[in-house]
Amino acid sequence: MRIFEETVQKICAVDKNAIEAAEKRLDYLLKPKGSLGKLEWLARRIAGITGKTGGTFTKRGIVVMCADNGVYEEGIASSPQNLSALVADCMLRGLSGVAVLGAESGASLHVVDVGLVDDPKEQGIVNRKIRRGTDSIMKGNAMSREEAIRAIEIGIEETAGLIDSGYDLIGTGEVGMGNTTTSSALLYALSGCGIDEAVGRGAGLTDEAFAHKKEVVREAVRVNHPDCNDPVGLIAALGGFDIAGLVGVFLACAAHRVPVVIDGVISGAAAVIAARIAPLAIDYMLPSHGTEEPGGVVIKKLLGLEPMLMMNMRLGEGTGCALAFHLIDAAMAMIQNMGTFGDIG
Amino acid sequence: MRIFEETVQKICAVDKNAIEAAEKRLDYLLKPKGSLGKLEWLARRIAGITGKTGGTFTKRGIVVMCADNGVYEEGIASSPQNLSALVADCMLRGLSGVAVLGAESGASLHVVDVGLVDDPKEQGIVNRKIRRGTDSIMKGNAMSREEAIRAIEIGIEETAGLIDSGYDLIGTGEVGMGNTTTSSALLYALSGCGIDEAVGRGAGLTDEAFAHKKEVVREAVRVNHPDCNDPVGLIAALGGFDIAGLVGVFLACAAHRVPVVIDGVISGAAAVIAARIAPLAIDYMLPSHGTEEPGGVVIKKLLGLEPMLMMNMRLGEGTGCALAFHLIDAAMAMIQNMGTFGDIG
Repeated sequence: MRIFEETVQKICAVDKNAIEAAEKRLDYLLKPKGSLGKLEWLARRIAGITGKTGGTFTKRGIVVMCADNGVYEEGIASSPQNLSALVADCMLRGLSGVAVLGAESGASLHVVDVGLVDDPKEQGIVNRKIRRGTDSIMKGNAMSREEAIRAIEIGIEETAGLIDSGYDLIGTGEVGMGNTTTSSALLYALSGCGIDEAVGRGAGLTDEAFAHKKEVVREAVRVNHPDCNDPVGLIAALGGFDIAGLVGVFLACAAHRVPVVIDGVISGAAAVIAARIAPLAIDYMLPSHGTEEPGGVVIKKLLGLEPMLMMNMRLGEGTGCALAFHLIDAAMAMIQNMGTFGDIG
Repeated sequence: MRIFEETVQKICAVDKNAIEAAEKRLDYLLKPKGSLGKLEWLARRIAGITGKTGGTFTKRGIVVMCADNGVYEEGIASSPQNLSALVADCMLRGLSGVAVLGAESGASLHVVDVGLVDDPKEQGIVNRKIRRGTDSIMKGNAMSREEAIRAIEIGIEETAGLIDSGYDLIGTGEVGMGNTTTSSALLYALSGCGIDEAVGRGAGLTDEAFAHKKEVVREAVRVNHPDCNDPVGLIAALGGFDIAGLVGVFLACAAHRVPVVIDGVISGAAAVIAARIAPLAIDYMLPSHGTEEPGGVVIKKLLGLEPMLMMNMRLGEGTGCALAFHLIDAAMAMIQNMGTFGDIG
């Protein structure tokens, strides 16, 4: 059996007893029941994932999947394509947003080239390049079905490797010019939402470019007419290697019972696909920030996860995960260290 | 001149040059302009307060004002009144929500008894008790005008003491049965909002108790008919010593150019009063979480500050400030440590 199928089969339900035990402790802490809101929700959810009440996450990493999206050639992005490899280089040099915010929250980066057109120059990139970018989804499938599975498996392998070496909390990030367009196309094809709910301005587009981006998404879905009930086929048709890689990250975390944090629209689109492949995988995902991109609302509905942060951030890279790590730490401190009604008699 | 007047006179506009310098640096960082949303907003705002771009907050404290509110006798709270001193004790023992979340975010607590009915038993409380609780606002003014000014001055003195000993970032917390009712009354009197916008369920009320709480607020405003243009008179009529103390915390931070974080509805009501006393004080305030209490929406409008966290928290104590400290740290790391377009040529 392939790693992909093996991983999907390994995903099982979260630990209901652990959730109940966490809930019991939460209700016994010195506060009105439920008054710490989503911190309590986080503590319960994490108990279900890890099987224990509380605990500390000692090794956290953000897996950043880097790939160029062929749809770039349709003129939908605001930045030059060679920026993808340059941004990956900036991450490796510790200069980018996620590098700085990751370091500030105790997370290391695991930057994976799964399909960049250019090669990053800095040391430290994990070279798992499938090929130099996908094909334009305006003209046909982005990649073959075999490539889609390969990209998912790269995500699984890299994440499993991290978990094997002691990582116990994972965030999801990405780099890739054109990937808000592929995310929008996936959400548009998958959810039956309107085009205005699926397509946002990405990192910064003019009105004209924005209208064009919507047209590209509509056309890509028309040209490929993908089957909504075949999530792997959907990625092959409309996805990027970066999104496919992130699908693998989500599946691996669920299979290994490690909490995995969703970032923005691209990471969220990958989470939605992972949930279509293995519905139980949702329960291993943690939300971070609400994004300004309209697709964020669609993702929230599809996954049933409410964001904890409203920061108006639209950088991607995994920056929202870094902020969410602090809230996860706070939730763990709360359930472990707060006093109980027993302490005061 | 009294400390109160002196402090108010000392409050001046934030540093526009520092804001511009921060903005210039933010736009030169390796990211699309504005793409880090409220993190960028925080970095700019803090520059205006401190007069410099970036920096690190090395000593942070949450000032917790503790007082009982006389309106308690009208049966508006869900917990017994002696819980106020007990909660203060729990803070001093490190067991309460804000003690744990504060420690997790590197903050120490400064717990001030400005008017508890009972005396806390633990060591470490700062005893500035004016008297054992205010009078019921259903029957007349909560306190005299002189007492209101005294409570504000206690907040000013305690905060100035912290700042003198090196504290450079302040959060605001409170303990006091009945203080969501006094906050609601202040917001209702001050803003002209409807009763349903001003009154929430607090830490947990039944439907009946909730309806009663609204009636109490309406009646308190009718009985006292306070002058909206006299913020000190408003506190004397409807406030608690806890809220008045927090007004002093906000004023002192503005006077000393130290950022001060707002927590929930009670802290927010104090922020609104401080802003009526000294409109420039608003620019020294930082938001934290959006609260489930309806008054939170009124406060957001009155101050023009968007919360960064949506955690459905309603514990108070200053718990939201502890979480916000992490976002403030992230904003400082971002503006200081991210690379610039100069770094990549």
